[in-house]
Amino acid sequence: MSIPVAEMQRLVHEGVPLARAWGVEVLQAAGGTATLRLPHHEDLLRPGGTVSGPALMGLADVAMWAALLSLTGGKDESLTANLAITFLRPPAPRAVIAEARVIKKGRTLSYGEVLLRSEGEAAPCAHVTTSWASAVRRA
Amino acid sequence: MSIPVAEMQRLVHEGVPLARAWGVEVLQAAGGTATLRLPHHEDLLRPGGTVSGPALMGLADVAMWAALLSLTGGKDESLTANLAITFLRPPAPRAVIAEARVIKKGRTLSYGEVLLRSEGEAAPCAHVTTSWASAVRRA
Amino acid sequence: MSIPVAEMQRLVHEGVPLARAWGVEVLQAAGGTATLRLPHHEDLLRPGGTVSGPALMGLADVAMWAALLSLTGGKDESLTANLAITFLRPPAPRAVIAEARVIKKGRTLSYGEVLLRSEGEAAPCAHVTTSWASAVRRA
Amino acid sequence: MSIPVAEMQRLVHEGVPLARAWGVEVLQAAGGTATLRLPHHEDLLRPGGTVSGPALMGLADVAMWAALLSLTGGKDESLTANLAITFLRPPAPRAVIAEARVIKKGRTLSYGEVLLRSEGEAAPCAHVTTSWASAVRRA
Repeated sequence: MSIPVAEMQRLVHEGVPLARAWGVEVLQAAGGTATLRLPHHEDLLRPGGTVSGPALMGLADVAMWAALLSLTGGKDESLTANLAITFLRPPAPRAVIAEARVIKKGRTLSYGEVLLRSEGEAAPCAHVTTSWASAVRRA
Repeated sequence: MSIPVAEMQRLVHEGVPLARAWGVEVLQAAGGTATLRLPHHEDLLRPGGTVSGPALMGLADVAMWAALLSLTGGKDESLTANLAITFLRPPAPRAVIAEARVIKKGRTLSYGEVLLRSEGEAAPCAHVTTSWASAVRRA
Repeated sequence: MSIPVAEMQRLVHEGVPLARAWGVEVLQAAGGTATLRLPHHEDLLRPGGTVSGPALMGLADVAMWAALLSLTGGKDESLTANLAITFLRPPAPRAVIAEARVIKKGRTLSYGEVLLRSEGEAAPCAHVTTSWASAVRRA
Repeated sequence: MSIPVAEMQRLVHEGVPLARAWGVEVLQAAGGTATLRLPHHEDLLRPGGTVSGPALMGLADVAMWAALLSLTGGKDESLTANLAITFLRPPAPRAVIAEARVIKKGRTLSYGEVLLRSEGEAAPCAHVTTSWASAVRRA
């Protein structure tokens, strides 16, 4: 039940309008991992020329959702329960790559991490951990 | 060295372009606390009509910065070192109020918390803790 | 369904053997709040004479459990889902007081915060946030 | 400047008396990584037979310190600035293995993660992220 990246990107843009507004691209998503790309945008910068924290958090959030969707054939009604980001170095004023990985997929809670890097750099600019709670449907 | 809210709002919009793009308002900022308001925007919603996580994180981030600025006469070059958000209930599709409070102002690290509420509601929709590192100037 | 503090202390010692080993005292527990005290112990110190991090984390964990128990008449099978501690200043080599407060009591997830102080001091030495998941019984 | 594991274990026991009291063993420590083992102890269990949260937090804390020490020839005066643990599944009532990894070693702040597993199991029982602040000496 692997999902083509174009279809995954459509799901992500539909579910998270900010991801569409920022032009977030899904580069890969399979087996509980996903790689997403946030293109360079002038209005996502902070003075000094670094990509703003909220943009990095938003990117990490959708990257983890894509990683979860890759395990469930594109159907996932989980919601972010918490997200913790640590900033490691100022990101360069260019595109950012997010690599997400599900560490545990549970029935009620899932958990994973996301590494964020400026495109073309090895050292991460930020690290994220996040828990997701399964939405409970009531009849 | 109290700062008028209009001046504080100008500082916040200048320092964080996303805050200006989203029309974030500074309602109060003094003595290590700050209250900010994120107006209702269609493009900050998620399907289902709740305000998106990245918008809440971004609002919390600038609210803490305003609280720090209130202690330093509007001059602060700290950067977010980490931010952890826990989502408590889905925010209603309307304006969000953030109340930030500095718990510790240190020379190299400061720490505080932010409560987020849908406007007009008592119960918080999210809680944030965040550390800020003083930017070190090198000659 | 308020619980006497002696009974609450018995519950906490029974449920968390480390709390008993360290002689943790319940000073107050009612309405979703609890105040606990960790007496001074030589073997909970670090070199330099500060109370060790793991001892502070353990104290915070049982303090939140007591706060949750105060809401449920002493019956609670929740488990810690996550705990985040920020160290604000080195605790003095004496007893530590923990003040826990439930921010949200949910059906499946609860959330709260704990302030830790050296006994007799106003400024906190650490701040904790923590989520608890309801244990699900299977027949 | 690699350090023999016996010497590393001595440093860890000297610096963290709880680690000595619990008999924590250093299995490996080099290049910014470390593997530690917490032996089985009846008094570190919770009712139900799982290893208690504070014991896991304490183990993770010293594991990260060992990983930092491996980068600095055994001299490190950093202190834990924060630690966040997410519990993924109840640990079995036996020894716990901690694998720590430094993600960033900075001048003033370092950051890393720790995976905790019951001995002999592949799936982690907990995941930790933690920041350490360099202790600043004043003349």
